[in-house]
Amino acid sequence: MKLVRFGQPGQEKPGILDGSGAIRDLSGSVTDFDGAFFASGGLDAVAKLDVESLPRAPEGSRFGPPVAGVRNFIAVGLNFADHAKETGSPIPAEPILFNKAPSCIVGPNDDVIIPKGSTKSDWEVELAFVIGKRASYVSESEALDYVAGFCVCNDVSEREWQIERGGQWMKGKGCPTFGPLGPWLVTPDEIGDVGRLGMWLDVNGERVQNGSTQTMIFDIRKIVSYASQFMILEPGDVITTGTPPGVGLGFKPPRFLKAGDTMALGIDGLGEQRQKVVAYRG
Amino acid sequence: MKLVRFGQPGQEKPGILDGSGAIRDLSGSVTDFDGAFFASGGLDAVAKLDVESLPRAPEGSRFGPPVAGVRNFIAVGLNFADHAKETGSPIPAEPILFNKAPSCIVGPNDDVIIPKGSTKSDWEVELAFVIGKRASYVSESEALDYVAGFCVCNDVSEREWQIERGGQWMKGKGCPTFGPLGPWLVTPDEIGDVGRLGMWLDVNGERVQNGSTQTMIFDIRKIVSYASQFMILEPGDVITTGTPPGVGLGFKPPRFLKAGDTMALGIDGLGEQRQKVVAYRG
Repeated sequence: MKLVRFGQPGQEKPGILDGSGAIRDLSGSVTDFDGAFFASGGLDAVAKLDVESLPRAPEGSRFGPPVAGVRNFIAVGLNFADHAKETGSPIPAEPILFNKAPSCIVGPNDDVIIPKGSTKSDWEVELAFVIGKRASYVSESEALDYVAGFCVCNDVSEREWQIERGGQWMKGKGCPTFGPLGPWLVTPDEIGDVGRLGMWLDVNGERVQNGSTQTMIFDIRKIVSYASQFMILEPGDVITTGTPPGVGLGFKPPRFLKAGDTMALGIDGLGEQRQKVVAYRG
Repeated sequence: MKLVRFGQPGQEKPGILDGSGAIRDLSGSVTDFDGAFFASGGLDAVAKLDVESLPRAPEGSRFGPPVAGVRNFIAVGLNFADHAKETGSPIPAEPILFNKAPSCIVGPNDDVIIPKGSTKSDWEVELAFVIGKRASYVSESEALDYVAGFCVCNDVSEREWQIERGGQWMKGKGCPTFGPLGPWLVTPDEIGDVGRLGMWLDVNGERVQNGSTQTMIFDIRKIVSYASQFMILEPGDVITTGTPPGVGLGFKPPRFLKAGDTMALGIDGLGEQRQKVVAYRG
């Protein structure tokens, strides 16, 4: 299934793609794709519906983020060997975990705002996934049972604030609009081998990231299991799993986003995002 | 006002202390003390109620955390000059911010579980506050308008996982039960000068932390304003503001928690917590 949330910001309705790729409105049967939905077996209930009989969403509806009410938005740092190298960092011995403020989550095609005072805003195409049930001390062998679905994430990052402002990365990771998610939440049955997905990101039409989940250091099983040793993962939590090479910080000299730029990005089977970069207006 | 949530874990009801310190049940007028409550002017509505006419909560009710549905639980690191010194760290030039997983939040007197494999679990009495309205790029002069109330927090910390496992602190900060909050959420009108509150923590009856918010490096105004430059703070978010000296890591040799220990802690005007330390049982 490809689940979506459509409509204006803060007023999104749940939907599902039909066989032709059109959005069908699920709001007659589902409140929202939030932690309570996943925890109560909502995915199984939706799978039983006759999608083609559901009402169509309005043509040209905006996509919101495909998950609602996210509480914990975790990211894995330097999880691609070639990306670690481009940033001048050693290959991590175990996953690096940090947080993005959940308030940074936006739809896949919403504008990305350069924060007030920022000069080093950067892009990162990433494979994200949503936790489907409470996970604590989970083994790698059972880890995939805790994944509700996958989506594209642009882990937008302010490099000065991430790296040069006290050591903890979260200052540069959770700025407003720094977490575009979607367009679709794709259930695991539909994605096939999540370890062989091509991923790419263009800035102003130029391909800058061109990678594959094949070069991830720690895979989904490891990340779920590992994170669950340190904290309880709850239904609706989002984990984004790191970026391949080609971020602005890795260019020589570094290249950062400026107002007027466009980013387009995608992952095989998970759809595409397109963001306009705009200046902060107070 | 002193707001509380009382009842069994996951089933807490909102309440308020009456003139005699007894809990009155607010569930007839308030759904819960969550982001929606604060955002919709819930505090003003509660202030108009005749508390003494509300039903009493059952005698001996358990206290839950006094805020529900927290999405972003932020902490300020090394925010007391004398604590920075005891950990061997320089005085921060600006606030250090990190995250605690919201799933670590528990009631003020619930057991604290030593995580599986932990040998360096430690205590930290802290002044926490709850955000009352959406805060983005807030100035210091208006910062206090965004604070709904204050509460005690034990920022329980696993030092090996915080410091020796990849650099980002969150691994040692969000373990299950590592975020006791409460007993009360005290509104600002009742707390007086938040910059002169005594704070203390006992382990097995021995006073180990004995400080005051007077030695905080960055005050509440600064913290709200500063954090809001990096992320949108939402109603119901919690920020805990750092600990005075006397944590286990600062002892020579260091002292850490073990099963069977008890912690008792409090802050002037905000009430007291008492936790039993227990081993993890899988």
